[in-house]
Amino acid sequence: MIHPQYEGAFFPVILGHEAAGIVESVGPEVTNFKPGDKVIPLYMPQCGKCKFCLSPHTNFCGKLRNFRNPFDDQKLMEDKSSRFTCKGKPIYHFMGTSTFSQYTVVSDTNLVKVDDDANLERVCLLGCAFSTGYGAVVNVAKVTPGSTCAIFGLGGVGFAAVIGCKLAGASRIIAIDIKSEKFARAKALGATDCLNPGDLDKPIQEVIVEITNGGVDFTFECVGGAKVMRAAMDSITVGGGLCTVIGVNVGDNGLNISAMELLMGRTLTGTSFGGWKGMESVPKLAADYKNKKFNLDALVSHTLPFDKISEAFDLMYQGKSIRTILLF
Amino acid sequence: MIHPQYEGAFFPVILGHEAAGIVESVGPEVTNFKPGDKVIPLYMPQCGKCKFCLSPHTNFCGKLRNFRNPFDDQKLMEDKSSRFTCKGKPIYHFMGTSTFSQYTVVSDTNLVKVDDDANLERVCLLGCAFSTGYGAVVNVAKVTPGSTCAIFGLGGVGFAAVIGCKLAGASRIIAIDIKSEKFARAKALGATDCLNPGDLDKPIQEVIVEITNGGVDFTFECVGGAKVMRAAMDSITVGGGLCTVIGVNVGDNGLNISAMELLMGRTLTGTSFGGWKGMESVPKLAADYKNKKFNLDALVSHTLPFDKISEAFDLMYQGKSIRTILLF
Repeated sequence: MIHPQYEGAFFPVILGHEAAGIVESVGPEVTNFKPGDKVIPLYMPQCGKCKFCLSPHTNFCGKLRNFRNPFDDQKLMEDKSSRFTCKGKPIYHFMGTSTFSQYTVVSDTNLVKVDDDANLERVCLLGCAFSTGYGAVVNVAKVTPGSTCAIFGLGGVGFAAVIGCKLAGASRIIAIDIKSEKFARAKALGATDCLNPGDLDKPIQEVIVEITNGGVDFTFECVGGAKVMRAAMDSITVGGGLCTVIGVNVGDNGLNISAMELLMGRTLTGTSFGGWKGMESVPKLAADYKNKKFNLDALVSHTLPFDKISEAFDLMYQGKSIRTILLF
Repeated sequence: MIHPQYEGAFFPVILGHEAAGIVESVGPEVTNFKPGDKVIPLYMPQCGKCKFCLSPHTNFCGKLRNFRNPFDDQKLMEDKSSRFTCKGKPIYHFMGTSTFSQYTVVSDTNLVKVDDDANLERVCLLGCAFSTGYGAVVNVAKVTPGSTCAIFGLGGVGFAAVIGCKLAGASRIIAIDIKSEKFARAKALGATDCLNPGDLDKPIQEVIVEITNGGVDFTFECVGGAKVMRAAMDSITVGGGLCTVIGVNVGDNGLNISAMELLMGRTLTGTSFGGWKGMESVPKLAADYKNKKFNLDALVSHTLPFDKISEAFDLMYQGKSIRTILLF
């Protein structure tokens, strides 16, 4: 039975969307990749032809058509076929990438090449977590020097947002998680304050408003769900506060927003893949990593062989891991 | 009995917040105004000292503290007294302005001087409607040349937004109202399409998405209430659409926003007084009006003596007026 919140999901499916790998073979019309290329799959495609791809202002692509159900798009190749079978039965693709697999099949619009000397055990994080959290800060919110920031949720995306806020010159970076054991890592990356809502005797947003004399300039919601969205929205200041939503809790009922909280000068936005156009940006991010602009090691808490993937999920759901690198 | 949606309102009160007048007298410590000055009251105060007033990025002022109840702030002077009485009993101020009166009392932080030759029967519109709608377009949304826009509600604010979109160089300006008799005026100001939701056989947002192949770049919600907010949010494109909320329906339950609609690259914001800092901006807007950058006559549908104020309200609620100028 499928849990109601996953209504609209498709099974059987090969999940996974954050990875790095090596091209094994290419189809007859593929000209931009060759066997042996080191590559990163892109769950945000880039057809290069639609009005979105031609606009400098968005990383959206017209290949995504079902905006309400993220499972629906890219569950099949563009010719509506699956390239996966098991015991003769077709298996769905997932987000155009399906990376929980030693071999996968992706469209050339869902792939980007990185340098031959790229460290696949680290640049795989550019396929989602790092790019998403870091880009939310530098591309979407455009955090300004001296500003105040709060980051809700210290997973891979949240830690990447901490890194972004530090590099953007924020004067105060408040990192929030329900697992205090993550705080030492957050402080090492630049967090100035770490708060565990479970340790507080009032709602987290009230504490943030108090300690910042009215709320922060920027919040980043890296968890998902109405409760954390509400806290992130309440934590921004009137007169210019910006709340950037990154997390998704599928099936969540969403956040109720009053006109008045907006009229007082608050803005609510969201981002997928940190606003990066993958084709141009991922190679640049890989170069920035190689040049030590930021440290991807900080996001890796565990490394496991692929056959221990269930253990990796357990670590994640227990809040014990940031990112677990699965080795094939 | 007070209707539940006005819970938190204060009576008796002198209402009104959009006006122009002449200084009759000043208090002993007032140095920036003198009797005879032509002035416009500002419901968004500017203390000039708080962190908001000192920031170039917002027109908010720290004098406003109760962000949830717009009636509560500025119902009294800063010394917590009222300057109005009737038959010996105190009467509340309203939004620091109380302009439905031949004489009013305002703080010098709620007032701005305009030129001696300013036409008070027109620059009064700079006290709210025009500045709010026009500023929402040029300051807050920052509408770009060639972009597509939809304006929900053709009152004074909505017409000012149409003027702003035209001046900003929008290629398509869709004006929406439930009173089709307003459309000739909207077209004269630059609207390219006029839609009456009552004439359509499907929701207005579906029509806008259809005729614009995916939604417009900018929407302006100049009505108030969750239903119109929803339509304005649904009418923006994925990948960069911006919905600016300006209308307030007091007591409204607000808009439910899902994370996914934000993650697809949509932004929701709001504004009071169009983002203008009144002290600096209103004189400039008055000069722009004098230099015929825009035409305030277009917003004036009726002119009545003050003792016909109830007739003016009837015209407004019947949707028959844009702005009625009341003469004292």
